[in-house]
Amino acid sequence: MITLSRRLGSEFLGSALLAMIVVGSGIAAQQLSPTDIGLQLLENALVTGVGLFFLIEVLGPIGGAEFNPIVSLAKVALTGRPLVDALRYIPFQVAGCISGAILANAMFALPVVTFSTHQRVSGPHFLSEVIATAGLVITIFLLVALEKGQWIAGAVASYITAAYFFTSSTSFANPAITVGRMFSNSFAGISPNSVLFFTVAQVVGGIVGVLIVKGLAPRKEVA
Amino acid sequence: MITLSRRLGSEFLGSALLAMIVVGSGIAAQQLSPTDIGLQLLENALVTGVGLFFLIEVLGPIGGAEFNPIVSLAKVALTGRPLVDALRYIPFQVAGCISGAILANAMFALPVVTFSTHQRVSGPHFLSEVIATAGLVITIFLLVALEKGQWIAGAVASYITAAYFFTSSTSFANPAITVGRMFSNSFAGISPNSVLFFTVAQVVGGIVGVLIVKGLAPRKEVA
Amino acid sequence: MITLSRRLGSEFLGSALLAMIVVGSGIAAQQLSPTDIGLQLLENALVTGVGLFFLIEVLGPIGGAEFNPIVSLAKVALTGRPLVDALRYIPFQVAGCISGAILANAMFALPVVTFSTHQRVSGPHFLSEVIATAGLVITIFLLVALEKGQWIAGAVASYITAAYFFTSSTSFANPAITVGRMFSNSFAGISPNSVLFFTVAQVVGGIVGVLIVKGLAPRKEVA
Amino acid sequence: MITLSRRLGSEFLGSALLAMIVVGSGIAAQQLSPTDIGLQLLENALVTGVGLFFLIEVLGPIGGAEFNPIVSLAKVALTGRPLVDALRYIPFQVAGCISGAILANAMFALPVVTFSTHQRVSGPHFLSEVIATAGLVITIFLLVALEKGQWIAGAVASYITAAYFFTSSTSFANPAITVGRMFSNSFAGISPNSVLFFTVAQVVGGIVGVLIVKGLAPRKEVA
Repeated sequence: MITLSRRLGSEFLGSALLAMIVVGSGIAAQQLSPTDIGLQLLENALVTGVGLFFLIEVLGPIGGAEFNPIVSLAKVALTGRPLVDALRYIPFQVAGCISGAILANAMFALPVVTFSTHQRVSGPHFLSEVIATAGLVITIFLLVALEKGQWIAGAVASYITAAYFFTSSTSFANPAITVGRMFSNSFAGISPNSVLFFTVAQVVGGIVGVLIVKGLAPRKEVA
Repeated sequence: MITLSRRLGSEFLGSALLAMIVVGSGIAAQQLSPTDIGLQLLENALVTGVGLFFLIEVLGPIGGAEFNPIVSLAKVALTGRPLVDALRYIPFQVAGCISGAILANAMFALPVVTFSTHQRVSGPHFLSEVIATAGLVITIFLLVALEKGQWIAGAVASYITAAYFFTSSTSFANPAITVGRMFSNSFAGISPNSVLFFTVAQVVGGIVGVLIVKGLAPRKEVA
Repeated sequence: MITLSRRLGSEFLGSALLAMIVVGSGIAAQQLSPTDIGLQLLENALVTGVGLFFLIEVLGPIGGAEFNPIVSLAKVALTGRPLVDALRYIPFQVAGCISGAILANAMFALPVVTFSTHQRVSGPHFLSEVIATAGLVITIFLLVALEKGQWIAGAVASYITAAYFFTSSTSFANPAITVGRMFSNSFAGISPNSVLFFTVAQVVGGIVGVLIVKGLAPRKEVA
Repeated sequence: MITLSRRLGSEFLGSALLAMIVVGSGIAAQQLSPTDIGLQLLENALVTGVGLFFLIEVLGPIGGAEFNPIVSLAKVALTGRPLVDALRYIPFQVAGCISGAILANAMFALPVVTFSTHQRVSGPHFLSEVIATAGLVITIFLLVALEKGQWIAGAVASYITAAYFFTSSTSFANPAITVGRMFSNSFAGISPNSVLFFTVAQVVGGIVGVLIVKGLAPRKEVA
């Protein structure tokens, strides 16, 4: 049995590392590959993918490696998890992502608290976040339903790497990381007034994902 | 037992996601890396590879994760699958790929229904599609014959990433995705009048692949 | 039991696909990324790596997926394999690599038989090929000695991707593919008068690798 | 049982190959991709990642594949390993890394013994090395505590690839490789007068990592 404090510590640590990975590699990519935005996004996407892989392998058995309120809530909807348990996770996810973004700024000698001016409010971005979040929920919870939990790290890493490129929003797909990215004025950032807009799209995507999982997951035999 | 409607739903969803991944990352690559076509293709190839990996892991146990009429028909030729079962899949694969291409256009704020002007009729492209499709069939069905089904996702992902680069056609290797790509005027697109030409090459490649699998697969001992 | 003709067919097919992958992606990289040789090599290295992964997964259980005379001979030195069995493989490996290079040229609408003018005779290249080949032999046969055969595909793919970049010769590490690459006038090619020089270095590297494996492999307990 | 001389030989060989991989790919990247430092770092990061993967798979069962004094000492702090065993490893790790750097220079026809002029003393670099080393220790030893040893190669490879980009120091995270990189005047190098500074940061990071592992690792049940 893992204690609650270890589980919450694991979520905080993992969310902080995830935000460091996303924001730090975003800053590095923008500074080091200034002439090609596609190359910046490739660097950011590959780094986020391998980052999610090790984070889920290492922290999954401790705190679940959710790092994402939508995932935590989808788990309530799709499994027997109590709502209160998901609600306990969310503040640690958000605080972790903010801490990670601030540490990333510090590692790159930028002002530690800064706000992005990257406007991201548009219909295509909304559609992108709905699809990105639905795809993430489908990937995780169909594997859970199929009892293929040991494949989640590789599948989520692969999914997110792909989703950075196949959506126009670069797939935030996570309200906690969206809040964290607010503190980065790199190409990975998002302006504070776009955060709620993205969060609404992610909630819609989470609901779509849950419905698709319910529709596709194989029914368990009744004994 | 998975119901037929879940299997067909899985094929539709997976084909739509595959087309979103291929077309969406093609649009992103072309917009974001405008000066180097090799870098565009690298982005497109890596994203398609990791995309196939998670799609096959997640949807394979539900609908088989075929997403490709050639694969569905090769399964008829090489295993005991009834032809009618393969024929049921094909319309869902084609409809999924078209839907995915349209959603990719919408995510990138492009006209949702557009037609590619990318001409691809040439001898070297024909040879490329024959080889690309034969290689795909060999990869999948030798693993099936060897009872290494759990390696198919990684092997197909690796194969397609390689095949984007080692053929001059960038390896469509799939009539359903060929039809879907008709709706994208990015470098990933194909003009409607090249679609039949590619499909014929893919059918030839599928037959070559089936013959090679029959020649190389170890014979089962007779009990 | 796999018949000899299936094993030799597997070696021919795999060697042909390997040469298509190496040469084809070399041509594509040079044509599509003309301004950055490092990017060309990255494309070539990643494609070769994932190519080796699927080839070894798919063909390993049939013919051993050696595709390389040095590997075939090292197996004689390090395991109970009869020399005659290795000698039977070599012509199929060489013929396969030549066929694959010719097909790659055809897929890219180049003259099918052409000779590279890429001179590669130098001391640093010799050292590079010795190290590259020794590393390959160590990777494969320590895993064999450790009874970790299921990791060979991933380890060899990773090794070769790295070796393309950490040596100055881009790690041919294989006399059969060296002969095949003689037929490609891309950056992946090698001029005929450098082939023997590379082959000598590869033989030396193979011997070094065999000695290191003998020195490091754990001794089996005597029962 | 593996003899001590085999274990030390494995550490020397692996450290030499690791330094060859890091320094050699650094030289290649700088020579071949001169106009984009981000692309250089991407090449260097991917090659180091796949390099660590095969090295840990192949040499892990022989000598532990530590290649890093901080990892060797953290093993003393976190498991029952005797200190003297870790102290025996360190000279072989350092000598291996120096040998590998020299061989890399030789493979690229550079002066074999050269010293980097790359100054790296700054607060953000110190913070980067603390975080990078703590993350490495957490990745390895939480997996050990969770009895997921077979995932260490993939997780460490993924972690280091990410850490090259999400820190501003490009994550040396290892005093032995730091000493080895002193001998490379490429972008992967470090000037001799920055080595002690990096080593102090890595020791601090190692301690932070050990404390986090102690805090998060699940307690074993008392029987």
